[in-house]
Amino acid sequence: MSWPDLPAGTGFGLANLPYGVFSTPGTAPRTGVAVGDSVLDLAAATGDPVHATGSLNAFMAQGPEAWAALRQRLRAWLTDEAHRSAVEPHLLPRRDVSLHLPVEVADYVDFYSSRHHAENLGRMFRPDSPPLTPNWQHLPIGYHGRAGTVAVSGTPVVRPCGQRKAPADEAPTLGPSQRLDIEAEVGFLVGVGSVLGARVPLADFSQHVFGVCLVNDWSARDLQAWEYVPLGPFLGKSFLTSVSPWVVPLAALEHARVPPPARDVPLLPYLDDADAGPWGLDIALEVRLNGELLSCPPFREMYWTAAQQLAHLTVNGASLRTGDLFASGTVSGPGEDQRGSLIELSWGGREPITLADGSTRTFLEDGDVVTLTASAPGPDGSRIALGEVTGRVQPARWTATDRQEGRR
Amino acid sequence: MSWPDLPAGTGFGLANLPYGVFSTPGTAPRTGVAVGDSVLDLAAATGDPVHATGSLNAFMAQGPEAWAALRQRLRAWLTDEAHRSAVEPHLLPRRDVSLHLPVEVADYVDFYSSRHHAENLGRMFRPDSPPLTPNWQHLPIGYHGRAGTVAVSGTPVVRPCGQRKAPADEAPTLGPSQRLDIEAEVGFLVGVGSVLGARVPLADFSQHVFGVCLVNDWSARDLQAWEYVPLGPFLGKSFLTSVSPWVVPLAALEHARVPPPARDVPLLPYLDDADAGPWGLDIALEVRLNGELLSCPPFREMYWTAAQQLAHLTVNGASLRTGDLFASGTVSGPGEDQRGSLIELSWGGREPITLADGSTRTFLEDGDVVTLTASAPGPDGSRIALGEVTGRVQPARWTATDRQEGRR
Repeated sequence: MSWPDLPAGTGFGLANLPYGVFSTPGTAPRTGVAVGDSVLDLAAATGDPVHATGSLNAFMAQGPEAWAALRQRLRAWLTDEAHRSAVEPHLLPRRDVSLHLPVEVADYVDFYSSRHHAENLGRMFRPDSPPLTPNWQHLPIGYHGRAGTVAVSGTPVVRPCGQRKAPADEAPTLGPSQRLDIEAEVGFLVGVGSVLGARVPLADFSQHVFGVCLVNDWSARDLQAWEYVPLGPFLGKSFLTSVSPWVVPLAALEHARVPPPARDVPLLPYLDDADAGPWGLDIALEVRLNGELLSCPPFREMYWTAAQQLAHLTVNGASLRTGDLFASGTVSGPGEDQRGSLIELSWGGREPITLADGSTRTFLEDGDVVTLTASAPGPDGSRIALGEVTGRVQPARWTATDRQEGRR
Repeated sequence: MSWPDLPAGTGFGLANLPYGVFSTPGTAPRTGVAVGDSVLDLAAATGDPVHATGSLNAFMAQGPEAWAALRQRLRAWLTDEAHRSAVEPHLLPRRDVSLHLPVEVADYVDFYSSRHHAENLGRMFRPDSPPLTPNWQHLPIGYHGRAGTVAVSGTPVVRPCGQRKAPADEAPTLGPSQRLDIEAEVGFLVGVGSVLGARVPLADFSQHVFGVCLVNDWSARDLQAWEYVPLGPFLGKSFLTSVSPWVVPLAALEHARVPPPARDVPLLPYLDDADAGPWGLDIALEVRLNGELLSCPPFREMYWTAAQQLAHLTVNGASLRTGDLFASGTVSGPGEDQRGSLIELSWGGREPITLADGSTRTFLEDGDVVTLTASAPGPDGSRIALGEVTGRVQPARWTATDRQEGRR
């Protein structure tokens, strides 16, 4: 039992204790822990300068023993009345604080690990080929994204401009994306780095990974379709990637671990997780457009786990750094109401989605607000919340002159 | 005329003055300027803490006026005898210093802007399609690489392991790359960042870009060939990217500016450099294997310029940060002795290269040393050196157990 007054059914109980970076008017960003509807000012409560840097990186770099020790200390503080008088003054109402990007992102990698998503996109982008490329079942396909445009939930989504060319067009034109989309994903944050030239075995996953956040990998499908052969997505993705402000410690997800789906082909030993313990995670995502529930992507359906992704990412000797973010790729389940992107939900724009107000959507319109939330099983039937990542689409910055110059 | 004793024909004369980060035994890394065979300790000579941080980032962030002011000051110091007694104690022999990674790399982008290289690789990787993809002449294709594995010249090149699958193989195997290659490139470093959502016009190139270095984008062709469809290169590149230690200021390359090759198709206005002044650069690269000259890639043949690359990179509103590195892609000219990678020089391994000692190479062997150097026209017929980027191949870290596990 905890002495703070926790709302019934809160996803931010003592089994969660996610970390974030917050500020109040006139104060500097510092580390906090979400507790019910409050945030515990860790910098003030601990007096430890590691929590006053304005990002979680320094604490994440301390490693699993330090993470476990602080978690234990926080639980003691919040359950033992003896600590109440010292701790309670550092609990602030969450509604009064601003939340910041919790981590200084080092490298950002995005995977492509939902079989259902990969098959759906393969069918749409490469209709004349098998939906999965031959490598897909043998390795978790991934690519590097732009770390500098990872931003915290709430950052406006300026509709990107770029080149696009419909098959019937003679030449590409420049202009605002007409197929602005979302990708509902789960992100993993590296705390402890590794040495150049040495791989990180799958079994060492929890020695390196600190925690989990939600990711919306905003995507401009028209830009992406024109640019992505042969070197992969670039401007179709790099304009913004939004992350949730609360980083849920890996330790909070122990009740969410599940075996991943059965694999179709034998895995090479460095990816074989049969002995290391499975890192499938039963995280239930929800995608909302202007408040209306669009889909419920099940993370437990992901073919490749984060532990496999990390082992693959480093098998060539690439080193990790504190602050590396790697995301799962769009989470889509087998059901039509489990798809994590609009391009899947509207089947490439050919089957518009009808909203409760009677309007329809294929891709995002200016003013639309997309919110991702998620939860996972905690102890004793409780739920762990992953916070939310939200963003409102702003019109493209596209002037009359730009319009003239969009075509030659 | 300068008072320091400069070797005849030095590429590090007063028209160059490249910046780097150096240390001597027992001292902390700090900023220096190469002058002939010496390095000027800028931290000591200026007393400015911006030069004592151990990276160029803080100085690069100050912008073009600060860059020009320091350059002018350095020239005055090194030409006017009146400054000699104050400055000379801070000139150290270059052979006595260690050179470090000059920049804390933010995001790393690699382009693909040599038409000859793209055509050569297209013929080898996609023999059944036209060598250039339809987008190639309309936009500078690029992708994000791994910033955390950008390292300074001299860093050992541990042969990477990874999945590879020859067409005849039934399943992929794990093991050391058998097609370890180089890519001779020129890199551009961003000093002044930009705001999320706002594009950087082509004409603003020199307001953002601080300087130029050489890049060897080490590549494992067998890993790359198996993994790169559909999301682009990942582990085939991410194990190491080496850069030269000296960053040549953009201002030192004013005599190297040339018009780029004629374009085949009309360019969209944001990429049209007809009015902004061309940013083709007449940089002559040299690729050496174990000291022997293998090829002389001409940077002036690049189809897309760095100014076009920067305009493209930001046209979707992606922001720049101090320390962003973007590289040209492999520099290959039309001639067979102008190719910037072994896969081109040995035509996919089918035409081995014979070295002076009678041995042959298709791809790199353990112990091989690859060194890239380059120079560009300076004033009055002089040459500006870009320093060098070198690396020796070390054997893969691949044990007997690994060998057993490489195949299931």
